[in-house]
Amino acid sequence: MDIKSVLEEIQPLDTETMEKAVKRLNSLTKPIGSLGVLENLAVQLAGITGDVIPTVRNKTVIVMAGDHGVVEEGVSAAPQSVTPQMVYNFLQGGAGINVLARLAGAEVKVVDVGVADPTLQDPNLISRKVRLGTVNMTKGAAMTRQEAIKAIEVGIEIAQTEIDQGINLLATGEMGIGNTTSSSAILASYTDTPLSIIVGPGVGLNAEGVNKKVKVIETALEVNHPDPNDPIDVLAKVGGLEIAGMTGLILGCAARRTPVVIDGFISGAAALIACKMAPRVKDYIIASHLSEEPGHLVLLEVIGLEPMLRMRMRLGEGTGAALAFNVIEAATRIMSEMATFEEAGVIMD
Amino acid sequence: MDIKSVLEEIQPLDTETMEKAVKRLNSLTKPIGSLGVLENLAVQLAGITGDVIPTVRNKTVIVMAGDHGVVEEGVSAAPQSVTPQMVYNFLQGGAGINVLARLAGAEVKVVDVGVADPTLQDPNLISRKVRLGTVNMTKGAAMTRQEAIKAIEVGIEIAQTEIDQGINLLATGEMGIGNTTSSSAILASYTDTPLSIIVGPGVGLNAEGVNKKVKVIETALEVNHPDPNDPIDVLAKVGGLEIAGMTGLILGCAARRTPVVIDGFISGAAALIACKMAPRVKDYIIASHLSEEPGHLVLLEVIGLEPMLRMRMRLGEGTGAALAFNVIEAATRIMSEMATFEEAGVIMD
Repeated sequence: MDIKSVLEEIQPLDTETMEKAVKRLNSLTKPIGSLGVLENLAVQLAGITGDVIPTVRNKTVIVMAGDHGVVEEGVSAAPQSVTPQMVYNFLQGGAGINVLARLAGAEVKVVDVGVADPTLQDPNLISRKVRLGTVNMTKGAAMTRQEAIKAIEVGIEIAQTEIDQGINLLATGEMGIGNTTSSSAILASYTDTPLSIIVGPGVGLNAEGVNKKVKVIETALEVNHPDPNDPIDVLAKVGGLEIAGMTGLILGCAARRTPVVIDGFISGAAALIACKMAPRVKDYIIASHLSEEPGHLVLLEVIGLEPMLRMRMRLGEGTGAALAFNVIEAATRIMSEMATFEEAGVIMD
Repeated sequence: MDIKSVLEEIQPLDTETMEKAVKRLNSLTKPIGSLGVLENLAVQLAGITGDVIPTVRNKTVIVMAGDHGVVEEGVSAAPQSVTPQMVYNFLQGGAGINVLARLAGAEVKVVDVGVADPTLQDPNLISRKVRLGTVNMTKGAAMTRQEAIKAIEVGIEIAQTEIDQGINLLATGEMGIGNTTSSSAILASYTDTPLSIIVGPGVGLNAEGVNKKVKVIETALEVNHPDPNDPIDVLAKVGGLEIAGMTGLILGCAARRTPVVIDGFISGAAALIACKMAPRVKDYIIASHLSEEPGHLVLLEVIGLEPMLRMRMRLGEGTGAALAFNVIEAATRIMSEMATFEEAGVIMD
């Protein structure tokens, strides 16, 4: 499905069902509102799905992989070869995301949207390579507008396939050496917060490396002049293929009334683009954790989302989102399993 | 076992095993330290248990119930009768804690340390009633020193029984109308932060009610002069029976090298007393969530603990702790299931 049709399909939440959900929550044996974010989640899920008592039993983490030409500028502490190596690690089940998804009873699916390694292949890899990594964005647009659209459409396709197969909770994950640089550049296009505050160490730069990264992003923004009123322009000029893939995934979930959990800073950059394309998308997103990457807090504030977990994590891959699956399931269990005041014979006042 | 023997048994963490755990974590396919608090938890569990790769498969939430004479002063939005009603709800499996413990694969055990209802009984209730609720602490000590000791020993006994039965992760929960008032009074004994900042709405007081609650606590502190250098004195004069029970549970876990997860504000007050009795206890505690009750952040800072979950919850019962079980299990799975760089053929630099 093309982007325009998907954007047209994104509807507001079902407020009638949300009101019923609030009514049920207020009948359960607890002070009103005392389960805080669990209650908010229950109401949000009701509004998304149209079920007062929703379930989220079938879950998938989609790990989008892509490379970044800008790593030529020395903005990452790890070499580009780590991207395909980690893709194989995901496929073999040995990475952090595999462990945390397994614990949550979720599948992990890995999509090559643009890894720079032309030999990358595996029967379990979803190969949708748009190009062999982006161009170095200090020397021009990271990709063409058409490539950005193609990468977004990959994400839309994946969302639709998963949802068609019965998945009702998706999460965004990613792998791509250099992608905190692209994400910082995206965020800088939508905030006045200076790059010196947004930009962080990524995998593990020292202070000197972070300063250099700031300068590289400044150059990329000067060279490309991304237009914040045209989110696809921002994505194409200073974004990444895996980021565009996640943007599409998020849009695809919203269009199909399916909740989507976002992970950390890079997932957040994809969500920011998706929300700029269609503001209603925000209502379909669940923010999982607050990353150690300093721009993440700024990014969530720009979108208007609040993270649940404060784990000082900065691994990406979807790890924070996978950890939040259990919390989201908890919200649904509260709705389906807690006794009402009447059932329990509890009289609060 | 008496308190003195338990305090003597509390040993430092096993630093040698912790160093091995760090070494293993640094060999796993992720940037060093990038799993943040999950890595800290893995190291802490290693230090507690002496296993480099610990497991936390058998989990119990202990819900300690007790009443507070101070509710006569109108410090709670809910009547005292809710305490036994909620105890029955716990025993029937319909409360928030039952739902969240079930999701985590944990048992819930309910202990009557001092509910004011003399008729309270149930085959599944652990009856260890020290007295029928505390005395109104604005008119004298909430309980005698001997009663406080007896209630602490209840908690120690419960910890030992659970651990003897193979439980290797415990959590503190509580039920007791009025217990945010007692917990605030305990905290006020150990901080210069004014009561106007510490004291919150509990179940649901309005601003006027919170002001009244501040004055009631001021009176209780003036009448009793609890001695912060004698934590049992603080517990006896302005604490509660269920709070003392949780203090004992925490001490009992530390003595048996078993991690104990604390829930919100009231559990935190019990942990504060336990840490004042034996500072090493802190190393055996895992802080789960940050409650909406305003004193909780102050309390965790006084102890020196950092919460993982920010869920705006304020239900108590152990609900935040039960939600954290999954995160703690995640930390152990990282250690046991993630591939090393060597195994995965990933070369970071």
